[in-house]
Amino acid sequence: MEFSLGQVAQLVGGDLQGPAERTVSGIQGIEQAGPSDLTFLANPKYAPALESCRAGVVLVGRAQKTPPELAVIRVDNPYLAYAKLLTAAFTPPYEPLGVDSRAVVHPSARIGPDCSVHPLAVVGAEAKLGSRVVIHSGAVLGRGVSVGDDTVIHPNVVIYDGCVIGSRCIIHGGSVIGADGYGFVFDGSGHYKIPQVGIVQIDDEVEIGAGNTIDRAANGRTWIQRGVKTDDQVHIAHGCTIGENSLLVAQVGISGSSKLGKGVVLGGKVGVAGHIEIGDGVQVGGGSGVAQSIEPGQIVSGYPVMPHRLWLRTRSLVKKLPELFKRVKQLEQRLGEDESKERSDG
Amino acid sequence: MEFSLGQVAQLVGGDLQGPAERTVSGIQGIEQAGPSDLTFLANPKYAPALESCRAGVVLVGRAQKTPPELAVIRVDNPYLAYAKLLTAAFTPPYEPLGVDSRAVVHPSARIGPDCSVHPLAVVGAEAKLGSRVVIHSGAVLGRGVSVGDDTVIHPNVVIYDGCVIGSRCIIHGGSVIGADGYGFVFDGSGHYKIPQVGIVQIDDEVEIGAGNTIDRAANGRTWIQRGVKTDDQVHIAHGCTIGENSLLVAQVGISGSSKLGKGVVLGGKVGVAGHIEIGDGVQVGGGSGVAQSIEPGQIVSGYPVMPHRLWLRTRSLVKKLPELFKRVKQLEQRLGEDESKERSDG
Amino acid sequence: MEFSLGQVAQLVGGDLQGPAERTVSGIQGIEQAGPSDLTFLANPKYAPALESCRAGVVLVGRAQKTPPELAVIRVDNPYLAYAKLLTAAFTPPYEPLGVDSRAVVHPSARIGPDCSVHPLAVVGAEAKLGSRVVIHSGAVLGRGVSVGDDTVIHPNVVIYDGCVIGSRCIIHGGSVIGADGYGFVFDGSGHYKIPQVGIVQIDDEVEIGAGNTIDRAANGRTWIQRGVKTDDQVHIAHGCTIGENSLLVAQVGISGSSKLGKGVVLGGKVGVAGHIEIGDGVQVGGGSGVAQSIEPGQIVSGYPVMPHRLWLRTRSLVKKLPELFKRVKQLEQRLGEDESKERSDG
Repeated sequence: MEFSLGQVAQLVGGDLQGPAERTVSGIQGIEQAGPSDLTFLANPKYAPALESCRAGVVLVGRAQKTPPELAVIRVDNPYLAYAKLLTAAFTPPYEPLGVDSRAVVHPSARIGPDCSVHPLAVVGAEAKLGSRVVIHSGAVLGRGVSVGDDTVIHPNVVIYDGCVIGSRCIIHGGSVIGADGYGFVFDGSGHYKIPQVGIVQIDDEVEIGAGNTIDRAANGRTWIQRGVKTDDQVHIAHGCTIGENSLLVAQVGISGSSKLGKGVVLGGKVGVAGHIEIGDGVQVGGGSGVAQSIEPGQIVSGYPVMPHRLWLRTRSLVKKLPELFKRVKQLEQRLGEDESKERSDG
Repeated sequence: MEFSLGQVAQLVGGDLQGPAERTVSGIQGIEQAGPSDLTFLANPKYAPALESCRAGVVLVGRAQKTPPELAVIRVDNPYLAYAKLLTAAFTPPYEPLGVDSRAVVHPSARIGPDCSVHPLAVVGAEAKLGSRVVIHSGAVLGRGVSVGDDTVIHPNVVIYDGCVIGSRCIIHGGSVIGADGYGFVFDGSGHYKIPQVGIVQIDDEVEIGAGNTIDRAANGRTWIQRGVKTDDQVHIAHGCTIGENSLLVAQVGISGSSKLGKGVVLGGKVGVAGHIEIGDGVQVGGGSGVAQSIEPGQIVSGYPVMPHRLWLRTRSLVKKLPELFKRVKQLEQRLGEDESKERSDG
Repeated sequence: MEFSLGQVAQLVGGDLQGPAERTVSGIQGIEQAGPSDLTFLANPKYAPALESCRAGVVLVGRAQKTPPELAVIRVDNPYLAYAKLLTAAFTPPYEPLGVDSRAVVHPSARIGPDCSVHPLAVVGAEAKLGSRVVIHSGAVLGRGVSVGDDTVIHPNVVIYDGCVIGSRCIIHGGSVIGADGYGFVFDGSGHYKIPQVGIVQIDDEVEIGAGNTIDRAANGRTWIQRGVKTDDQVHIAHGCTIGENSLLVAQVGISGSSKLGKGVVLGGKVGVAGHIEIGDGVQVGGGSGVAQSIEPGQIVSGYPVMPHRLWLRTRSLVKKLPELFKRVKQLEQRLGEDESKERSDG
């Protein structure tokens, strides 16, 4: 990449204080950046580093105080501006490859304009791809799968029959969308399989990490709403709804028929029980277990979850249990509680 | 689907009270069902809904009281009858595709009658498929793999050399069967790999969810017995035995050489240590950690596990630890325990 | 396999006491082994079994007391000797297959001598394979991927553009190396994707289990150092460094930018927070949650972690909380603490 400061200011919608014709060709941290690098100040705690900053230009907040000699571009959100700049710098223009002759596309599938179907991808009967869809090698789309415009399906993804994927989505390698939900009924000698006749519906602007498993509904749909982003190895069981713009960090697991509101954040490895509701904006700390519904706006942690502040106090007390048992025993002895001898206090 | 009530009664082995020639074409919940729908009453708590039920017919238990004007079919297990009906309605007759010309089948592999080997599936040397086996696209079966009659291997499954899969099994997308178990011995400078020369053996009527990893034994076999059903992202290490009809919910992980009895149920995210035994019929609550062997028939939860009833009381007390520490401190102060000041009570 | 005792002694660098020409053809446990079997004594607690041992030969430590009539081979590390013997017995000589005509290898890729690129493997533009590299069916290597000598990539592995894999590595089925790290910035209406422009670098002698996800760095590299071994379903987020010879057991998850030292051992299901450091030689018990940095050499367990010995005492006390609350209440009552009535003690 090489951009003039004028170009950068235009790209990020910012106000430049400095020479418009100066160019930068790299991106570095605020302390490492040199005269040919761009850097940014998103976290106020690094503001003192501006004094000695040697960067060619710094993306800063609108009201940030900066040394007069330092070239800066003032924006509303420096981190967002940085991300947009990276996108401009590192996203080559899209060049459609068409359908590779070594891909397997069923004659009844409909492929929109300017798609790229890579070698050894499989597109099933009656599947339907929008415009500029990219299907990488080894991805397998079942019968009747529908994929919206500008969506990218990475290698070795599996999408079972009938599932619906929105526009501008990304699904990373090895994820499996629409496998049968886990449903059985005991028939006296074994577990009889309950047919899973629903689908998975993924709305627009969703990104699914690598190695996810999102199961089809028993009936109806498992629904991943607009703007949801999942990290790697996330599992979503049959019949769940994940509300708009929710974030599910790696190794989260959500049991059947649970509903997440909008903007929910589940930390890594969080487990969610079935048939519960998690309200809009709830945040759950990593490693926590959610066994019951949570009202909107709560911040919770622990196994099982409790208010996050309570958890911070509780988790340190668990380590002091041996001491507490000893103290209680001493109290009992002082009060002549001989019965305490019958107990084992560890 | 469209069935007459007479057909439905015959399919599920039930006694019809109502017009045999009436037809139903949909399946709905007991409150949503209309005159052209079938519904079922499996959970007694919904029985009052029968009074206002408008369904074309309801599957009910043999002894269920029902309004006289409501068409019902009496069966032993309404939920099972419902599942069987769904199966009849949604399972199209199997049509063998044969071996697609774009599949890669080694000349020494033996393919039974009426198999379907989809495009870009791989069947290795000396592999052996029974009758009506379905191998979906992208699945890779190693040398000498054996698959029983009527088994379905979904897209992008990997089965390593020499593993044995039973009849009437289903293995969902992306699962990896028979990768090397995790075995190393430190040689002073690094971890020397212990060859894993055993296999995975999966018996009949097993269903493996998406994204599972079931490792081959160091020697002998990792053994998944008849009727086991695993959910997605389950991990089973080398040398384990999973007893008949056990259920492993999503993200369960079982360490090496552990043995589960028959009919064990492990909730989501349960972790099981290595070299332990879990007795027949044990149930372990979601998110629990099992560090030691468990006698048959126990119901346990927690990290580490304890009797489930004890866990229900204990988990609510953890939240009250800050209060308890305060109370103990007050007791100590009342008894003049000055030494308590030296401690930090959080 | 069939080896003379002389051959075995030479293979493992041991001293034979017994007939060099005697042959063994099987490997069994110390109690099961018969005259045609080899066995080994690695754990001293089984030493008494030597008295009645009927094996053709036993691998034992240099100083082990053994019955005079028993053929033994004395070595420094019997378990390591056993592993080396297994390797010799079960590793057929490597026979290069070349590039199969049904593989898809970009014309600009460079393939070293004696490689095996199996049917339906994909090697992208400008990728570079060393000598004797094995790429199994269904594996997809992106643009510019580099793979060192003697490395084996198992079926359906995905390696994204630009990632670097060392020599003598093994990557098991279904693992995804180099998918985008999980990085977004909220733009007021949705989560804007931060381009992940780094790579994954895997050094020599690394083994990656099945179903792993190791994400590319936001910038720079996610770095798996020499000799690391991961079990199945391990997740490593963007920007992490995993130090030499560390062991990550199944279902471990490590959040972004964390650094593990050399020889770290993380038990199954361990979760590690982001931006922390775990020192050389740290061992973390299975199921634990690591929220803060850990000094070198510590052995810790629990959620959150504490010293392992403390954890062993603490975890048994959690079960006794109901009893403890009762005891404290009794103490309060004896002291006339009426206020305790206002509290609910579970």
